[in-house]
Formats: sequence, C-alpha cells, structure tokens
Amino acid sequence: MGRIALGLSYDGQGWRGWQTQAGGQTVQDALESALCRFLAVPTVATVCAGRTDAGVHALQQIVHLDSAAVRRDESWVRGLNALLPKTLAVQWACAVRDDFHARFDARARTYFYVLRSAPVRSPIAQGRVGWVHDRLDDAAMRAAAALLEGEHDFSAFRSSECQAASPVRTLQALEIHRAGDFLIFEFRANAFLHHMVRNLMGVLVTVGRGRRPPEWAAELLRDRDRRRAAPTFMPDGLYLAHVEYPGTDLPQRTARNALRHHLGDLFAASGTAGSWP
Amino acid sequence: MGRIALGLSYDGQGWRGWQTQAGGQTVQDALESALCRFLAVPTVATVCAGRTDAGVHALQQIVHLDSAAVRRDESWVRGLNALLPKTLAVQWACAVRDDFHARFDARARTYFYVLRSAPVRSPIAQGRVGWVHDRLDDAAMRAAAALLEGEHDFSAFRSSECQAASPVRTLQALEIHRAGDFLIFEFRANAFLHHMVRNLMGVLVTVGRGRRPPEWAAELLRDRDRRRAAPTFMPDGLYLAHVEYPGTDLPQRTARNALRHHLGDLFAASGTAGSWP
Repeated sequence: MGRIALGLSYDGQGWRGWQTQAGGQTVQDALESALCRFLAVPTVATVCAGRTDAGVHALQQIVHLDSAAVRRDESWVRGLNALLPKTLAVQWACAVRDDFHARFDARARTYFYVLRSAPVRSPIAQGRVGWVHDRLDDAAMRAAAALLEGEHDFSAFRSSECQAASPVRTLQALEIHRAGDFLIFEFRANAFLHHMVRNLMGVLVTVGRGRRPPEWAAELLRDRDRRRAAPTFMPDGLYLAHVEYPGTDLPQRTARNALRHHLGDLFAASGTAGSWP
Repeated sequence: MGRIALGLSYDGQGWRGWQTQAGGQTVQDALESALCRFLAVPTVATVCAGRTDAGVHALQQIVHLDSAAVRRDESWVRGLNALLPKTLAVQWACAVRDDFHARFDARARTYFYVLRSAPVRSPIAQGRVGWVHDRLDDAAMRAAAALLEGEHDFSAFRSSECQAASPVRTLQALEIHRAGDFLIFEFRANAFLHHMVRNLMGVLVTVGRGRRPPEWAAELLRDRDRRRAAPTFMPDGLYLAHVEYPGTDLPQRTARNALRHHLGDLFAASGTAGSWP
C-alpha cells in the first residue's frame, strides 16, 4: 500500500458539505465513489484537511488515501476527473510518505471570502460570491480585522455544534482587498473552529455597514458569548484556498494563485474603488 | 398604457434560452410569469433585444413591455426581483417612448466570451466560463480576429436554423484581452446571426490551438460554407453585455463595466501572462 495526496476543487452548491452523512450528497461520498470505480475496489477511505460545510467551496482541499494501485500522477487526475461530477475535480495527485496525514499534519489554512457590495443582486455571481446590498466602510472593517488578528479565545465565533477541545486559535492574518464592487477577505489561521470564518464575516459586515464600531470585535472576543455576535454569514463566497504542510513538497498553488486560477485575477484590480453612484 | 424598458441579467444555465417554447423553462416564461404576479394581470407580452440560446448568459438583456400600471422605477426592480428565481434579476427599469422597440431600435450589440485555458477543468468556473485544456496562441487568434472584423457575408458562421433574411453583418470590433489563464473575447456588431458568436469562437480557438493558420478565417468568409468551419463552441462563457439605442437614455452600464459588475474586474489583469508551466 502507498499513500496518495490529492488536491481537490469543488463548487459547494448542491453538496451537503464534505463529510459523509446519512442521506448522502456529500463531497466525500462523490469522491470515494469515483475512487472505488477508478481503482476497482469496493471501498476507499479518504481523510481531508478541512471539513467544509454545505455550500462552501474549495480551491484546494487536500485529501489523502491509501491504495495498492500504481498509477502515474497524471493518470489519477485524468481518470478521476472523467468519473467525477462536473462540480468536483482533482487538480493534482502525488505520492506522499506513509505517515502523511491531511488533517493532523496541516499547520495553517487559508480561506477566502469573496463578497459583492451592490444595490441589486447578481444572478451571475450568486452561489459563488456573497452579497450585501449596502455600501461598506472598508476602513472600519480593516480596523475590526486588526483587532481580531492574533491568538484569542474565539468562543463568540464558534458554532454551538463545534466539537473542538479548545476555543483558542491563532488568526495569523485577516486582510481585506477591495477590487471595484468586489471585496476579498483573506483569513489565515493554524486551524478554524466550526463556522468561525462565516461568524467573523457576519461581524465584519455589521461593522462595514456602520451598525457597530470596529471596537465591537474586541468586545466580542473578551465576552466570549456567541449570542452577542452577528448571525452566521451566508456560505456563498467562502473558499478553502490553501493548507500548509511544513517539510512536504505538494504541488499546490499559493492561496492567491489558486483564486486567480479559478475565478480570474480579481486581485489585479485591488485598490480600485467601487462603482456605487 | 405606457411602455417600460427593463435591464435584465441572468445565468443561462438551467434555462432553455430566452424565447417562450412548448415545455417552458425559458427566461421569457419566468419573466412574464413574475410580471403577471407583480402587475396582477393574466398576461404580459415582452420583447427582448437579443434572443439568447440555452446556456447563454445576459449581463444586460434589454426588454420592453406595455403596462397601465404606474410604479416608481425602483419598485419595478425590487418588486420583480422578489418574484424572480435567483438565476434571474432586473437591474433597472425606466419609462420609454411609446414607440421604443427593444429589438428593432437596437443599432449594435456587444457580447463577451470568457474563456479559461488551463490543463484541468475548474468546477468553480464551469457553466459561466468556457474551457479549453490547450495552451492558446493569442497572437494567432488576434490575427484571425482582424480578418473577421468589418462587413462580411457570415454564411460560414450561421446556424442552419438561422432565420435572418441576409447573412451580411458588420462585425465592428473583435478584441481579445488576456488576463492570466482567462481570455475575454469582445464582439460588437450591428446584429448577430444565429450561433454566430459561438461559431466564431470555434474558429478562433482552432486557430489558437495551432490547428489552422489565421488566414483560414478569411477563407471561411470567402467560401461561405458552414460545413468547413469549426463546430459551434460551448455556450458556457457567452454573455450578452450591451445593446445600443442611439438617441435614448437608458441607465445601462458600458459593456465592460457590466462584466466587471457581475464577474469582477478581470480586465484589470489584462496583458498578464497565463500561468502555464
């Protein structure tokens, strides 16, 4: 048996999240089903880096599995993509050490939230980009973001269903890029709690709308009460973009290059003002 | 009765094109059904600028209709969007002259084709962006595009089902913008024949792949034989972006601003090279 790592991208719409569950229609179900057909075996077990929720997308989800099959890296990609539904695709495959673990070896994860701020909804962007019909104050959101960076108890940003042992996480970076009517929020942390990015987005957007001052973010961290924070923001614009494994040599793109590769180079317009009247 | 113009955007996936047909599931059906509910009338007849095919999107489709109802422009937008499915939205509404005609008054139309050139398919881009797994030669495609511009008999680029009286059209501009792995093809003409943009795309991509020289485009125009040209290209990346009505004052965005508004500012990265290894 050898261990294989896969870089997987998916459109989260229409999937009930990563993890296998009764009733099916999960990304893991679809991937394992394609792997069984590709390898001609009855079962294949996969482990992923970040168990994304329903509606959340992946630019580069990292998955590992064990197989006795010997295939060229390119054959894994072509063979699996021919069997996977069109909302799911393997970007690369490679052999890894037998003790590589997609979840436990991950030292940092990067998520993007792509948000559109415009008076009218867009049928073209919907599902893959979040939307607010308000004008947002970028400076206020950046001030709140700066208060959220660092090691904190993120209890106020944690779903009641979260199973993590500790609510303490290190948010290494929370950057906000403006590109016309689009905003790109970049979150990098050692790990994230359940719903943490969407709960942080809810608070940032509330601040951006001017309904709360930036300092509210610090209050929420201090009070550690989920009920005082903003509602969980819609999943539409959320992308798992990159997972770091120090000491390994996976053929990943950087987080920003992965976003460029799938959505086009929104960063190139970074700094340009929105088109609000 | 007064005449109203609407600016409509839609995701063409899941629709069987603009025009009402037996079996339904067309954009016109969905819009007229929402209009009937909004206006509380049994029927409403709409006329559009460009009857898009199944799978083709609109950033700004222009539609006119007659109604005795008096509503503020903003009420048309909010009221209809609350009744329309999420893949369809009215961007603006305004009163127009009683003899304004969305189809017959249109003097020029602009379409974009957004294409991704990358070795592996993207589940994120699929449906809204075309895809080729080949590297494309931009200079060769631009040389072919220059041969296609101008007034020509476009019989080689016309569907067998095309009902236009004449195959002569004036292709005022065919520009190709490169933004990383994305290419944006911009087509502006007085009017287009059935499948004309997708048939032009088929030829441009064949030239970009190096399978034919740029001069092939001129040969096809001269021979006027659809069977010698390339197959009709996939609809995924095709967007009706702008329709010109000289002497009117519709609150339209420019074609490029409409693309920026819905897909983000891909033009900002224009000129940047692709990320092929």
